[in-house]
Amino acid sequence: MSRLLLEVTKLQPQDIVVLHDLDITVVTPDTVTAADISEIEISYGWSTEIGKKILADPTSKLRWVQTMSAGVDYMPLAELADRQVMLTNASGLKSVPIAQSVISYILHFARGLNVYQTQTHWQEFTDQYTISELPTVIFGTGNIGRQIAHYLKALGGRVYGVNTSGHPVDGFDDVVAIDNLGALPDDIAVVVDVLPGTDTTVNFFNAERFATLGDLYLFINVGRGTTVNQADLITSLQAGTIRQAALDVTLPEPLPDDSPLWQQPNLLLTQHTTWAEHSSAGRAGNLFPLFMKNLPSYLANEPLSVNVVDLTRGY
Amino acid sequence: MSRLLLEVTKLQPQDIVVLHDLDITVVTPDTVTAADISEIEISYGWSTEIGKKILADPTSKLRWVQTMSAGVDYMPLAELADRQVMLTNASGLKSVPIAQSVISYILHFARGLNVYQTQTHWQEFTDQYTISELPTVIFGTGNIGRQIAHYLKALGGRVYGVNTSGHPVDGFDDVVAIDNLGALPDDIAVVVDVLPGTDTTVNFFNAERFATLGDLYLFINVGRGTTVNQADLITSLQAGTIRQAALDVTLPEPLPDDSPLWQQPNLLLTQHTTWAEHSSAGRAGNLFPLFMKNLPSYLANEPLSVNVVDLTRGY
Repeated sequence: MSRLLLEVTKLQPQDIVVLHDLDITVVTPDTVTAADISEIEISYGWSTEIGKKILADPTSKLRWVQTMSAGVDYMPLAELADRQVMLTNASGLKSVPIAQSVISYILHFARGLNVYQTQTHWQEFTDQYTISELPTVIFGTGNIGRQIAHYLKALGGRVYGVNTSGHPVDGFDDVVAIDNLGALPDDIAVVVDVLPGTDTTVNFFNAERFATLGDLYLFINVGRGTTVNQADLITSLQAGTIRQAALDVTLPEPLPDDSPLWQQPNLLLTQHTTWAEHSSAGRAGNLFPLFMKNLPSYLANEPLSVNVVDLTRGY
Repeated sequence: MSRLLLEVTKLQPQDIVVLHDLDITVVTPDTVTAADISEIEISYGWSTEIGKKILADPTSKLRWVQTMSAGVDYMPLAELADRQVMLTNASGLKSVPIAQSVISYILHFARGLNVYQTQTHWQEFTDQYTISELPTVIFGTGNIGRQIAHYLKALGGRVYGVNTSGHPVDGFDDVVAIDNLGALPDDIAVVVDVLPGTDTTVNFFNAERFATLGDLYLFINVGRGTTVNQADLITSLQAGTIRQAALDVTLPEPLPDDSPLWQQPNLLLTQHTTWAEHSSAGRAGNLFPLFMKNLPSYLANEPLSVNVVDLTRGY
């Protein structure tokens, strides 16, 4: 009996052949019929509109959603949990480009490119840093956080991690629990926010937290816009307690033209594009091989093992 | 019998104590007398003005010059050779900051920061690259070239080296001889020029060489301004055969305000500051420990072994 897969995220022709050989029929948002809605077992990518119809259908056969994103904060997690739908994300898929963007931000300021980029006459800016002079703490020790730590260590850096429990993670000099930030060394210069968007991370980086962290050379957010209180960040940038910042994610996205963030000097905005790399066609590049790692288990009615989201924690 | 050292490059008070304990007397350009000129044995740093007087004095006792720079193209090499004066340079001292600047240039363009730096509204620039997508060739496999190669490998890159003989060097995927550039792979995207300034490297990167190298994503010069034909570089940038460039060194320095380089889009100029790091007071930071590695040999009348310049080759 053929199974139905909804192709929200683009599949390549050769991917569809692979699925057909496994007796999986592919429907797209354009071709999906009312009758298909209850028959769809797998959603490859997520469409809010069609997803709503599926979840509203008491006879839905939906069992598995594979997202094209690492973060799943936009997903109806409670409903998926109620319906016992399995959720897998794309965590790890974009760790390399995202981590290389983080290194680019740090070096951009550290090597003075923020100054040189706009120069039109000779002016030596020698207030520069090497990576070893900028101890860094990364909030989030998942795939992306570990990739960033790996690069920073190769560049001679000292790197700390923050996660929920403070459990050690390879590649960090030390890891502390998120409720024990006082245990961080007092010479932290760079903070990298890779926190997932969950109920407990909303506004995590606010005036109080910035005060705890002390004066910073650079604040970076490649996690979720919801994790930062943007007004408090602007206040810190204007006071100079945070010397400069780089945000790939903001609230909202796209950021409207009248947002004060655009006018803030020493703030670099990169419009949620750190995932980009030349070889992959769009954000979903290389997602199919990841999906295929779980498919044999799925077809054998065994638990999925790769990139499974805990629907209660939200990551 | 006390020896005389001319302190052109700044010494710290504790350094002078160390020298005094070894029966070395320090004179500065401000305090040097006519009688001192013939007595000076060691020049720590190089003053063109005083150097001329020393070399014009047939009774000069000058035996050793330690430069604060890696390149020694501004030194009177032939005269030093005639007088059998030993020359040691500062190669390696600034490899880390210089190599981190090179990585900053590559990531600046690769991660789209050249575009984002000036944005005032939401615009996604997704024509981005990771390091593995930008095969790189480094001209010069000395301390700086090797440090750059080390960082690029850690970031997942493919890295080739070019040196005089094509002898293999650890940390490069392959090394070719400078007269055998046809042996380089044809997908080179980034060229890093770390060539020393010598008679044979003048105008090395000219129209003909650019044609040999094919279309480039990025051309970088952290060697010497003399090695690049700037008019030819501008022609290539305007033709698009070189998409973008970053120059730390130019001809002349400082670059005058009317240089066409300032007006060139997609050209980053960093005013000969890649040496800068936060912890060292100026370019000479950490030079004394390097100098001290040779001093025991010098005092024992043995050959110097660290950073000795071949006065014929010029590096």
